Amino acid sequence: MDTLSRIYRENLALATDLYQLTMSYGYWKTGAHTKEAVFNLFFRRHPFQGGYTVACGLNHAIGFLRDFHFEESDLDYLGGLTGNDGRPLFEEGFLAYLRELEFSCDVDAIPEGTIVFPHEPLLRIKGPIIQCQILETTLLCMMNFQTLIATKASRIASAAGEDPVLEFGLRRAQGLDGALTASYSAYVGGCAATSNVLAGKIFGIPVKGTHAHSWIMSFDDELEAFQQYAEAMPNNCVFLVDTYDTLEGVKKAIHVGIWLRERGHKMVGIRLDSGDLARLSIAARQLLDEAGFSDAAIVASNDLNEKLVAELKEQGCKINVWGIGTKLVTAHDQPALGGVYKLSAIRTSPEEPWRHRVKLSEQAIKVSNPGIQQVRRYFRDGVAVGDVLYDEEQGIDGGVEAVDQADAESRERFGEAMECEDLLKPVFRQGEFVGEAPSVEVSRERAIAQRKQFDASVRRFEDPAGYFVGLEESLFAMKRRLIAEASVQKAEGGGDA
Amino acid sequence: MDTLSRIYRENLALATDLYQLTMSYGYWKTGAHTKEAVFNLFFRRHPFQGGYTVACGLNHAIGFLRDFHFEESDLDYLGGLTGNDGRPLFEEGFLAYLRELEFSCDVDAIPEGTIVFPHEPLLRIKGPIIQCQILETTLLCMMNFQTLIATKASRIASAAGEDPVLEFGLRRAQGLDGALTASYSAYVGGCAATSNVLAGKIFGIPVKGTHAHSWIMSFDDELEAFQQYAEAMPNNCVFLVDTYDTLEGVKKAIHVGIWLRERGHKMVGIRLDSGDLARLSIAARQLLDEAGFSDAAIVASNDLNEKLVAELKEQGCKINVWGIGTKLVTAHDQPALGGVYKLSAIRTSPEEPWRHRVKLSEQAIKVSNPGIQQVRRYFRDGVAVGDVLYDEEQGIDGGVEAVDQADAESRERFGEAMECEDLLKPVFRQGEFVGEAPSVEVSRERAIAQRKQFDASVRRFEDPAGYFVGLEESLFAMKRRLIAEASVQKAEGGGDA
Repeated sequence: MDTLSRIYRENLALATDLYQLTMSYGYWKTGAHTKEAVFNLFFRRHPFQGGYTVACGLNHAIGFLRDFHFEESDLDYLGGLTGNDGRPLFEEGFLAYLRELEFSCDVDAIPEGTIVFPHEPLLRIKGPIIQCQILETTLLCMMNFQTLIATKASRIASAAGEDPVLEFGLRRAQGLDGALTASYSAYVGGCAATSNVLAGKIFGIPVKGTHAHSWIMSFDDELEAFQQYAEAMPNNCVFLVDTYDTLEGVKKAIHVGIWLRERGHKMVGIRLDSGDLARLSIAARQLLDEAGFSDAAIVASNDLNEKLVAELKEQGCKINVWGIGTKLVTAHDQPALGGVYKLSAIRTSPEEPWRHRVKLSEQAIKVSNPGIQQVRRYFRDGVAVGDVLYDEEQGIDGGVEAVDQADAESRERFGEAMECEDLLKPVFRQGEFVGEAPSVEVSRERAIAQRKQFDASVRRFEDPAGYFVGLEESLFAMKRRLIAEASVQKAEGGGDA
Repeated sequence: MDTLSRIYRENLALATDLYQLTMSYGYWKTGAHTKEAVFNLFFRRHPFQGGYTVACGLNHAIGFLRDFHFEESDLDYLGGLTGNDGRPLFEEGFLAYLRELEFSCDVDAIPEGTIVFPHEPLLRIKGPIIQCQILETTLLCMMNFQTLIATKASRIASAAGEDPVLEFGLRRAQGLDGALTASYSAYVGGCAATSNVLAGKIFGIPVKGTHAHSWIMSFDDELEAFQQYAEAMPNNCVFLVDTYDTLEGVKKAIHVGIWLRERGHKMVGIRLDSGDLARLSIAARQLLDEAGFSDAAIVASNDLNEKLVAELKEQGCKINVWGIGTKLVTAHDQPALGGVYKLSAIRTSPEEPWRHRVKLSEQAIKVSNPGIQQVRRYFRDGVAVGDVLYDEEQGIDGGVEAVDQADAESRERFGEAMECEDLLKPVFRQGEFVGEAPSVEVSRERAIAQRKQFDASVRRFEDPAGYFVGLEESLFAMKRRLIAEASVQKAEGGGDA
């Protein structure tokens, strides 16, 4: 059973907006449901004012698509919905159509853990428009949130350098699965473990935890609390030392650490959860070192984020394990990624040529790209130097000239001999899963390895450098033509977009 | 089957932090697991810099507690966890103990939809410390998030006045259940419907939706798109008019509205999703009225929040249905409620008197309250005028003098004859459910009715007035004594807190 169906008991076909189903009904009713469409799922701006984003959510999306179907209880529910005249919204014939509906789209996707940029399709779905439409909201929900959290985790892990980052966010997460999928995505993004035991059970990711203040408070004395904990669980001792006086707490932890050592066990470390973490960690390190505990870890928690981690390290703190909760699992400074899902081509039947589409907007950056898009990434000496969006039917023959998405006056040329890779990989063909079975470990390794493929300036928190993402010149020309045509129609108050 | 177990297939006992289980193991191993404890779940500050909070999450918490147990697969998973010496973290005997564990606590709670204030226990759990501990994280996750979203929804509904608010957040929510529980909580807080079909199916809340830009874009012409939609679903027509030129779109909607009217149907309204919503809604209203569609709704969406709703209404907009997505379901400006769960009393066995506890902090507002807390709310002419936290064993005999939580110099007296209500109601007694079966409709009505029980100054967005929440004077004296004792111990570097 895949992880998604271990989480959810209810069938997920209805985890969509009602308008996807009313539109689907409209397509069916007007006979337009067999039109073939191409939709792309992409975002327009990096989260956290950052310079890169880590794609995540595909594992769950694949689980959802492989299992996609409507159950009788879904159809019963839909059959009971009524319109403003009290009559059913959906005809029986449509419900019968949904009952028989089998997922039959082609899906191409950028693998989980890949570093991605605005306007690059994380998912590209080609198939009957009715299916593309019903799937939109669920896919957006999965990809938006998981990409957001994987990116946040990557930023924190990047700040922490070689130190492990532990995800502690369950208690303040947005619902239990806001927590579960956050634990998954945080691990993909670079965290070393989670406190969430169910996430450990379902996803097979490492879990960590020792004790809280309430343990200390349930005893009359802090030393007794440490001692009792050590006797109970000598192979998992990280003592939380700040319930009363932090440095006195460290001394008591050392006292119990010596007791453990004498019995052949090893104190893993101490945890600081309040106060000036830089100063306290330096003082604690000194006490621990003097007592011969130079390999004891100093874990810190308390409302941390990537910028605080970076600042504390700059101040010479001696923390070497980071526990991050709320700010990570809710992506506190930007709790939603604005990913969208836009039509880029349509045709009445698979025999016809594609008619390309753009979605207009008053803001140039919000105008969508047309075509059957693929992304080619170019490398120089193993470092990624630019991405080019091109139309797959058009292809790239040899070198390519690309127009900067952010600035039409700026162009880059990538030679034929350059190392390159197409980022979108086949995942489904006519509804059959043809991709690789995704594994959380592989996704995580990819995310960590890819971080090193990009110049440090791209990963900077403040004013990161722009990375070149361009449109292959004939795709750019096609987009410009479609915009011009649509604008004429708009000025006329008509609409062939 | 309750709604929670319809959502999740996996047993939820492991939806907790690992340290709750390692501490529980410590209690069990040291024989302390039979100690009886009282824990309170509360928050310290209103979200969104607001003046009130709407309690939510109890429905799910009850479902979780009624079903609480460990399954074999949970115990297998825990049995496989190892410590730093590679040996198991948990002994077989402990796993056997968990296998037999039955929830046996007393739980009192403030009903869903009640307006609550900082430091008031939303949940109070009394029972074996080991159970209280294991439950902590799951309960915090449920109550924190749902209370946050119900409060956000209440603020938006308050700004919208009599206009319905529709929740449209699924695509940008924090995971599918970040979405599902958000839809539930938003409805409790005062929303009229959701776009999330699965939330409608599971929770029985109304769903709404018509069509998106992609419907329009799949046709060559906007008028044709409206017409085809109207033919397909004449009893559910809200036309999205801003794909090209908004007011031209309104005219086309009117054209199709007339077609509908001639056939005995009724155009429900139009939707605006971009541009200056105030100006466009006024112009659209005029066009609709002139064409005899004065009862057609004007729905607006596009990144709205409570402050924008209030401002648009001040500007005389003609919007009368509000669609709110991301800013509502992620509580975008404060995506986590900092609820905590603190020990307030402990005893070795039920025969002994309680030993009260406070959790110290350098910040006075973070020091927890001791005792077996109950909250009494006083009313004058149906308007809530103050809440008093008191110790239930101590009781309140007649009138009460209470010390302001925020200012120890300030006191209020509430007379014996005043109308009052104790907010915490019995939910479980020795593990048996004794409360009322919660219903989303009842919770929602409570939230809406309670909003009117408080002075408008408390509900203000900017600089809301403080509402009196005090400690009954003997509870206040007890807290002061416990702090003094603990501070002496702290100065001595010891710890009887």
